[in-house]
Amino acid sequence: MATLGLIEYEAASAGVRAVYDDIMATRGTDWINNFWKALAHDPATLQRTWASIKEIMRPGALDALTKEMIYLAVSASNQCPYCIASHTAAARKAGMTDAMFAELMAVVGMANETNRLVSGYQVEVDERFKCK
Amino acid sequence: MATLGLIEYEAASAGVRAVYDDIMATRGTDWINNFWKALAHDPATLQRTWASIKEIMRPGALDALTKEMIYLAVSASNQCPYCIASHTAAARKAGMTDAMFAELMAVVGMANETNRLVSGYQVEVDERFKCK
Amino acid sequence: MATLGLIEYEAASAGVRAVYDDIMATRGTDWINNFWKALAHDPATLQRTWASIKEIMRPGALDALTKEMIYLAVSASNQCPYCIASHTAAARKAGMTDAMFAELMAVVGMANETNRLVSGYQVEVDERFKCK
Amino acid sequence: MATLGLIEYEAASAGVRAVYDDIMATRGTDWINNFWKALAHDPATLQRTWASIKEIMRPGALDALTKEMIYLAVSASNQCPYCIASHTAAARKAGMTDAMFAELMAVVGMANETNRLVSGYQVEVDERFKCK
Amino acid sequence: MATLGLIEYEAASAGVRAVYDDIMATRGTDWINNFWKALAHDPATLQRTWASIKEIMRPGALDALTKEMIYLAVSASNQCPYCIASHTAAARKAGMTDAMFAELMAVVGMANETNRLVSGYQVEVDERFKCK
Amino acid sequence: MATLGLIEYEAASAGVRAVYDDIMATRGTDWINNFWKALAHDPATLQRTWASIKEIMRPGALDALTKEMIYLAVSASNQCPYCIASHTAAARKAGMTDAMFAELMAVVGMANETNRLVSGYQVEVDERFKCK
Repeated sequence: MATLGLIEYEAASAGVRAVYDDIMATRGTDWINNFWKALAHDPATLQRTWASIKEIMRPGALDALTKEMIYLAVSASNQCPYCIASHTAAARKAGMTDAMFAELMAVVGMANETNRLVSGYQVEVDERFKCK
Repeated sequence: MATLGLIEYEAASAGVRAVYDDIMATRGTDWINNFWKALAHDPATLQRTWASIKEIMRPGALDALTKEMIYLAVSASNQCPYCIASHTAAARKAGMTDAMFAELMAVVGMANETNRLVSGYQVEVDERFKCK
Repeated sequence: MATLGLIEYEAASAGVRAVYDDIMATRGTDWINNFWKALAHDPATLQRTWASIKEIMRPGALDALTKEMIYLAVSASNQCPYCIASHTAAARKAGMTDAMFAELMAVVGMANETNRLVSGYQVEVDERFKCK
Repeated sequence: MATLGLIEYEAASAGVRAVYDDIMATRGTDWINNFWKALAHDPATLQRTWASIKEIMRPGALDALTKEMIYLAVSASNQCPYCIASHTAAARKAGMTDAMFAELMAVVGMANETNRLVSGYQVEVDERFKCK
Repeated sequence: MATLGLIEYEAASAGVRAVYDDIMATRGTDWINNFWKALAHDPATLQRTWASIKEIMRPGALDALTKEMIYLAVSASNQCPYCIASHTAAARKAGMTDAMFAELMAVVGMANETNRLVSGYQVEVDERFKCK
Repeated sequence: MATLGLIEYEAASAGVRAVYDDIMATRGTDWINNFWKALAHDPATLQRTWASIKEIMRPGALDALTKEMIYLAVSASNQCPYCIASHTAAARKAGMTDAMFAELMAVVGMANETNRLVSGYQVEVDERFKCK
């Protein structure tokens, strides 16, 4: 189980419940996943992390699906099992098809390969790529 | 300079030139960036890597811009300076605006933060997130 | 199970037992955790790794608790499940409270976020930060 | 230069200036480092990131120096040159001596070594380390 | 189970079966490991990945055992459980003894330690190490 | 320059000089690279790190060239510029040809790609790969 355990809704303080309620309302679900229940032991971090994610993942110049796929791409690249599982579910809910998932993973794999080839070959940045 | 140096078009073998030509034709440019010139010392890897990237980055279930942004997201997460510079340029060419870039980076930053919070708190994957 | 298996005290050579004995004496415990039992297949690495850890984790300019928390911070950042579990236990034994753990994780998460924002935005090091 | 350039105080909007002012007041300095000037192109991320760092780095269960050293430890482990330079400066300002820096780095190095030994040897988590 | 599930030989398309057949023939085995069964949902990625690995892992300037050990070294450094398990098996099949494995891990651990010491101490590259 | 600066032979204490002398004698060179000069501010870490590297890199079940290539593979995978530069030089001195370097990098790139494909697809370890 999580280091500090999980705080269920029933056992949560009013402040934690308010965050849980906002998570469920924002996501249109009736449950809270373990990540938030684990963070709830530190209400300040729970509140700040949720507020940040809510703001960042809101559709803007990028739509919700693209943002979820980027989140999943980073999590797969970092090899974080929990994050891969949860953001695969979130991306699917936002519309990611199996074909989109497969192409996403192909890009993630390729980027990880060429990142190391570039580093290993000690390739210098082209002048044209440098920011003025 | 790169470990094995860079092979310019003029000095390249016919096989390497064929790859260079295909890169320029596919990308609609008249120059080759250093990454390919460094890889050209190993024609098999040059050929294979380019063929893979060409296939993977071709619009499919995901459009070209989304793919370039995912490539940039992974490169930023891996902190690869060359790849960040080159794929920022490529994503911009594919249509990424400053606002899109900023939102992309916000997601990358957040994903890296929560990946570690999840790991540090030893959070178990929720049953609902597990693949059947 | 571990790649080469685990070597229990009873089955260990005299040299390995000497390391086990020193681990237990130094830590004030009566058991050996799996990491050492796995390394015991390579007595030279077992001996060298333990000697290094013993020297590094000894209170000096930094106290034992601070050192254990740094070890945990790096392990959480690297997302190493075994290391997170073992160094959470070690840090607690050294005095880490739940509140300290939570603040530690908040810093680890934040550092991982800003590390990528800095890289992604290609921020140059300020002159004032450079070592003379 | 940074991808989107740097926004100096004189050229900043009122909202960005307010963040800059708070950074300088909180840190007791009269200048803004490049990280914030780069983020200023995205005022929402600038504001959110600064608010998070301000809250997280405030002395609490852990003192300011310990927090800065943990930030530096993670940045060194992630090999982020900008972050290492800036947080080395910040940690020194908070009281880190050369001896403390050296011990910090020794722990960071060791943790990175054993994280991989554990993974490579496929060591299972001891029952005693598992959270109830 | 894997995100998209596993495709067994019996349920596979002719194109996927052709890859499976080539994997088994090349490796001299009569079974397919889960990685390929998971990738089979994306036949293009399955085909491209297998063709790349087959080409890369073929003995050349480096023999098969050395290549498998390098693959394992990277996987251990990246802390990828599946890859560590599968490439430990592959390296053993190619001739890796327990003593070789132990020395391999010792190098991987040490490299991860000094990579961070170098970064943390902000050591500049010696002139003699720079490529002309 | 390095965080704590570099300690040249002339300015070094007797203990540090002894390590420098052993490095030069062991490697058959007449100079010390910056890494050691930076670590010299912490004689205990200098001594311990050198002793560990000397022991680990000594030919055993694996020859010196293989060990240097593994060190380089990990450094390229970790994207550590100093380590890539120094261990490329060391591997070449030990006999690495350009063709060997190119194959080494191809394996490093591929391993980084498949490590993420495996993680992203959430592939479970095959029973046959599990250690008994």
